[in-house]
Amino acid sequence: MTGIAHSRREPAFLAACRRRPTDRTPVWFMRQAGRYTPEYRAARARRNVLAICRRPKLVAQISLQPVERLGVDAAIVFADVRLPFEPLGLGLAYAEQGGLKVWHPIRRPTDVDKLKRVDPARDLAHLLEGVRQTKAGLTARFPDTPLIGSAGAPFTLASYAIEGAASGTCNATKRFMYEHPEAWHALMDKLAALLGSFLTLQAAAGADALQLFDSSVGCLGCDDYREYVLPHSKRVIELAATAGVPIIHFGTDTATLLELMAQAGGDVIGVDWRIPLDAAWARVGDRAIQGNLDPSALHAPPPELERRVQDVLRRAHGRPGHIFNLGHGIQPGTPVKSLKAVVDLVHAHR
Amino acid sequence: MTGIAHSRREPAFLAACRRRPTDRTPVWFMRQAGRYTPEYRAARARRNVLAICRRPKLVAQISLQPVERLGVDAAIVFADVRLPFEPLGLGLAYAEQGGLKVWHPIRRPTDVDKLKRVDPARDLAHLLEGVRQTKAGLTARFPDTPLIGSAGAPFTLASYAIEGAASGTCNATKRFMYEHPEAWHALMDKLAALLGSFLTLQAAAGADALQLFDSSVGCLGCDDYREYVLPHSKRVIELAATAGVPIIHFGTDTATLLELMAQAGGDVIGVDWRIPLDAAWARVGDRAIQGNLDPSALHAPPPELERRVQDVLRRAHGRPGHIFNLGHGIQPGTPVKSLKAVVDLVHAHR
Repeated sequence: MTGIAHSRREPAFLAACRRRPTDRTPVWFMRQAGRYTPEYRAARARRNVLAICRRPKLVAQISLQPVERLGVDAAIVFADVRLPFEPLGLGLAYAEQGGLKVWHPIRRPTDVDKLKRVDPARDLAHLLEGVRQTKAGLTARFPDTPLIGSAGAPFTLASYAIEGAASGTCNATKRFMYEHPEAWHALMDKLAALLGSFLTLQAAAGADALQLFDSSVGCLGCDDYREYVLPHSKRVIELAATAGVPIIHFGTDTATLLELMAQAGGDVIGVDWRIPLDAAWARVGDRAIQGNLDPSALHAPPPELERRVQDVLRRAHGRPGHIFNLGHGIQPGTPVKSLKAVVDLVHAHR
Repeated sequence: MTGIAHSRREPAFLAACRRRPTDRTPVWFMRQAGRYTPEYRAARARRNVLAICRRPKLVAQISLQPVERLGVDAAIVFADVRLPFEPLGLGLAYAEQGGLKVWHPIRRPTDVDKLKRVDPARDLAHLLEGVRQTKAGLTARFPDTPLIGSAGAPFTLASYAIEGAASGTCNATKRFMYEHPEAWHALMDKLAALLGSFLTLQAAAGADALQLFDSSVGCLGCDDYREYVLPHSKRVIELAATAGVPIIHFGTDTATLLELMAQAGGDVIGVDWRIPLDAAWARVGDRAIQGNLDPSALHAPPPELERRVQDVLRRAHGRPGHIFNLGHGIQPGTPVKSLKAVVDLVHAHR
């Protein structure tokens, strides 16, 4: 294939990841395969997220829905960032109330030694089969739509492992980091190896791009990120990069961490709505950028939503390398027509 | 009193608020009158926060403890940001589990109209008496230690009023803002008038400085802050400024909002740990700055804690107008000896 033929056929999403010019700004939504659709809610009424993720056919169905329903430029494999915990022996399971929980959180340095050795190809085979079947479904029905695989970043997973559940402040995590730096780095090492391998295998199973979710990292100051996180995120991204597909490095609440996140790596840096897109891009430098509409804006009246979409596009200024997305996942109860309106507005923009 | 005599006697905390040179960097801690002390825990074992705040003598006792125990440069009146809700009729009360809750949150625009008219001098008289008795206690025992009064900022209170409890994302608040902008501004107007008056009365009752806590505002992007928050925070600060005491304007997660917060007003801008102090000060401009040690650092081993304290001081670079504080409140379980160590390190710094 010549370079020209290649770039002519390259989907806008993948071209933008590589900062190549595109005919239109590509758009997809974090959590687009999820709780806002009636089909997903029907599946969830019968099964919890773990049970859904063990059924590759159902994963493929749920992951393809937004491509059909919304016309987004990429599919993402339905998943939960905590899935890699299952084989580690942290007791990932559902609570009667409150959803997915880590039942044996890490409390002491010795808990890190007790983590089971994980072979992702074997222990996460059901998830990889979900990637494979989603890719097969796309190839059959939407051959031009790329597929995104994903995993939680080491810090976000370590904070779940220590807190036992989502935490806005990550206080226990930071205490563990400061009090037991050796055990912390050992934990992050294990997670980085597991995640790097898991992401590479997702690419081998058909993912055309990979997103690393560091959703909790914004609780850290810059020095903490540099010392306790950066080397491990860098390692995951380096391992995953061997697969040859673009990597999106996403976090929330990262206005002051963006330069360091870019140092850790990623072809694309994903940003939340707290920082204007142009200001974020200036900090990120020579990378593509993904974002950054506030997911709450999808509840605004149509003219206000349109104004906000146009503001993000204006700040991107047509510069190659912008992937339109939300600044965080779609919230439950988001109107489907708002999502569709955003896709149409972004695609109509020239 | 001549200018020289005045500046000689002026407490370091108040001088720093006005960006006047001081012999040493003043230091106090958010939530210093609170849950980390054995005395406070004993009081809480018998009474909830609302009940404590209705007993001015107990408020004074709790508020004076950290001055005696830690040697901080300012006292703050023990309070909860939600106390002004009591007379508004939102049903502020304790839940069996989960602490203080707003039982009749605002769901519809008409709920805003139903809010009761509040006369802070009458309806919050018990809180003002707490300020008075705390000031009397300070005058008797620590006459050189200034007293800080406080209130939640309009956005933070509006988000409690709408969400019913603390929320990291403020999704319901933002939906209300976008869907019902008129009712939103009416709510913020009511809160701004109430808070401006409440703060002014605290100064009249003996507070030497006032802190506005906008703890939840960091969920907003810059445009939302400018449109939905700034005019109302500005009004509170303008009203409170008539009392002639310095005003501290604090928020968390505000790295991208600092310029706008400074525009809204405040002699001192309080910042969290997510942004390095020097970077924050550059954004804030010609204001004093308060912060910004990560409260989690108080759990770090002593050498690591010292390194972090020195880093904040190094970034302040001896420039007049730095008040040392945490980036957010003291966490439960924080060792008292860490707090004492920080006070000593800050006071030893030249």
